[in-house]
Amino acid sequence: MQTLDVGLVGLGTVGSGVARILTENGDCVARNAGRRLRLAQVVVRDKTKPRNCQLPDGIVSEDLEKILDDARITVVAQLIGGLEPARTIMRRLLEAGKDVITANKALLAEHGPELFEVARGLHRSIAFEASVAGGVPIVTNISQCLSGNQITSLSGILNGTSNFIVSQMEQTGTEYADAVAEAQQRGYAEADPTMDVDGTDAVQKLAILAQLAFRARVDWHDIPRTGIERLNPVDLKYAAELGYRIKLLAVANLAPAGLELHVSPTLVRIGTPLGEVRGAYNAVNIMGDAVGQVFFHGLGAGQMPTASAVMADLIDTAIGRTQLTFQTLNLWQHEAPVELGDPDLVPGRYYLRLAVDDHPGVLAEIAGVLAQHQISIASVIQHEPPSESDSPGVLLVIMTHTAAEGPMSAAGQAIQNLKSVCGEIIKMRILD
Amino acid sequence: MQTLDVGLVGLGTVGSGVARILTENGDCVARNAGRRLRLAQVVVRDKTKPRNCQLPDGIVSEDLEKILDDARITVVAQLIGGLEPARTIMRRLLEAGKDVITANKALLAEHGPELFEVARGLHRSIAFEASVAGGVPIVTNISQCLSGNQITSLSGILNGTSNFIVSQMEQTGTEYADAVAEAQQRGYAEADPTMDVDGTDAVQKLAILAQLAFRARVDWHDIPRTGIERLNPVDLKYAAELGYRIKLLAVANLAPAGLELHVSPTLVRIGTPLGEVRGAYNAVNIMGDAVGQVFFHGLGAGQMPTASAVMADLIDTAIGRTQLTFQTLNLWQHEAPVELGDPDLVPGRYYLRLAVDDHPGVLAEIAGVLAQHQISIASVIQHEPPSESDSPGVLLVIMTHTAAEGPMSAAGQAIQNLKSVCGEIIKMRILD
Repeated sequence: MQTLDVGLVGLGTVGSGVARILTENGDCVARNAGRRLRLAQVVVRDKTKPRNCQLPDGIVSEDLEKILDDARITVVAQLIGGLEPARTIMRRLLEAGKDVITANKALLAEHGPELFEVARGLHRSIAFEASVAGGVPIVTNISQCLSGNQITSLSGILNGTSNFIVSQMEQTGTEYADAVAEAQQRGYAEADPTMDVDGTDAVQKLAILAQLAFRARVDWHDIPRTGIERLNPVDLKYAAELGYRIKLLAVANLAPAGLELHVSPTLVRIGTPLGEVRGAYNAVNIMGDAVGQVFFHGLGAGQMPTASAVMADLIDTAIGRTQLTFQTLNLWQHEAPVELGDPDLVPGRYYLRLAVDDHPGVLAEIAGVLAQHQISIASVIQHEPPSESDSPGVLLVIMTHTAAEGPMSAAGQAIQNLKSVCGEIIKMRILD
Repeated sequence: MQTLDVGLVGLGTVGSGVARILTENGDCVARNAGRRLRLAQVVVRDKTKPRNCQLPDGIVSEDLEKILDDARITVVAQLIGGLEPARTIMRRLLEAGKDVITANKALLAEHGPELFEVARGLHRSIAFEASVAGGVPIVTNISQCLSGNQITSLSGILNGTSNFIVSQMEQTGTEYADAVAEAQQRGYAEADPTMDVDGTDAVQKLAILAQLAFRARVDWHDIPRTGIERLNPVDLKYAAELGYRIKLLAVANLAPAGLELHVSPTLVRIGTPLGEVRGAYNAVNIMGDAVGQVFFHGLGAGQMPTASAVMADLIDTAIGRTQLTFQTLNLWQHEAPVELGDPDLVPGRYYLRLAVDDHPGVLAEIAGVLAQHQISIASVIQHEPPSESDSPGVLLVIMTHTAAEGPMSAAGQAIQNLKSVCGEIIKMRILD
């Protein structure tokens, strides 16, 4: 059986996971790859740092040239985060004739077009299954398994950290800050969880999936996003009462007016596949014109699920499938065949929660504003205020029928300006 | 852009679906395949039969030679059912130098080893995504996306017809025969649904998945199976009371004693992904040593979902990925690395339902028999008999803790022989 030499740049959480599979699970890998994958060289920033994996002697160094100069190493998994030096290292690896595997979605979302161009020019490939949704092999499923379809919509829970936090708030009734602390304690959230909870991470992943599914060339900064930082347990309670859970949902939807893209806390019906995604899991629901609805569910992050995705890419590259796919798809190359739609025209149903003065005529006033904007009401909840309440008003929850984002925002603003409305209106999408 | 000529043998439900995608969705297919796929020749049994798709003039014939002799046609989707002439036609296509795509799981379960051997000898490939679970791309996911894992277990709802029938019985409380009639009326069941409801179809699919996931070379006739033909609505009712649904479940589980394989009606917990699979959907839950649990859900059959799977194979073959995968995996070639376990040693929890005489000491007697076989009881339900009941006894439902299949069968037989037990004991597995 042939042996293929593999290089590894970065030996953090995911890198050590990959090293473990390569060194401990070699027979299984060899069976699926048709050749042995030998971990030939590992490059790290600090060689003296303790690692949680056993490696053969003498293969770890701080010298990238050891990989660049070794012509037997044709495949390299580059598993470091951030934009630099990740970008420069990837360029150098490609220029040295290596096919590269990455798990770095920020790098792809920011520099994908440039790096893919470089790889194509050099007849090399970049594989990136691990960059979106860890253990859910969504990249291959979209770009290969569903390739006979025009995908018409895609909705996903792409950030396990925020899904854990929201699940925690829902199950225990805790406030956002406490749920974040719990997530940090369990290792699901980093010390600074900003990128996870503000939707940046999900938006970057959505930009990659939108390129795969729709060839939409979109700057992730342009995708509208709302995070979960201001999520209030009271909305989780009302949502549950209405038969919904709240999920940080990434949506790409091919509408007549163009491609709708956004990430926001969204009400998802309990009992549907997406509604049942708990804790640190990720899931993606895809609608294809031939296949209908297909749903994928798995761990969104973590050492071994992400290493599993990197290994699939390593094996695909070892076999030569990745190179064929990379050449064929020409990702980020052409002008986008799909235009982004005007966000104001995106239709949707909405959940509104507002505090109002408890006097006659308030509901009529609010319903009137919605009617002026052609928005019809699907349901209303107004509970009697608890007797011990010291707040001046009552909470009102309104679920609308389908309306466009533009009129909905205008109506929201108009309602916000009403004298009888106290505090900020909470507005969230509902997934139909 | 290059054009690749494609042949089609069979223009039934799935064949017409594939023809529709090739003729109506050509641009989308070309984008994903990197070349245009031109439907060059279609061979059918009866040319005069009306078809529900529009085809270019002059490409339909009853003459297989038109494909065999056309050297420009290098890829053929062979979409006919049954064992013969499907087997002979596939051999002839391979011998004529064509790469073949099939949706025929019975053919692969029966003649897979022989046909794969022929293909390998001729340096050709066979792709078969559509042979298992229609719209769920499980073949590629196991053989490619999870290739860095040792898969440790797999459980799936692989037959949409029986899942529709059981869902129907559960939701409406109808008897089996009425649910079958409903499934036939809606086109989910054939006039003779035997292969679907007796577990044959699911067992054949399980044999294919066991080869992919475990390299287990198993004759599908040897996989223990129980169908749904004798399922009683009363068990669906009791299962629901206990928090479960009943599903015709196909299981492959890698245990220390060997590979456990079986298809049988199984209690699956409500709220888990598999427990929520309704109607004609299929689903597969896979546990991999690195990735953890991954779950796939989609339409199990039907024209367009199955055509979607065939198209993915056509595109993979057009690009050249299929050939690499086929060469690498060497399916059905080697001695199986995995031995089948002794069915008697397979551990599991069980649901027992039995009618017993309503007199003192009966429960003690039954519990005594279970204890003699080292089987402990997890829960018991015995309702008071309805006052208008004309049956002589009462129904008793027992859920056991984990026990091996062998002792469980022996205990079941011993209980069956007790004088106070009337009629047949119903015994079903519980998925943990």
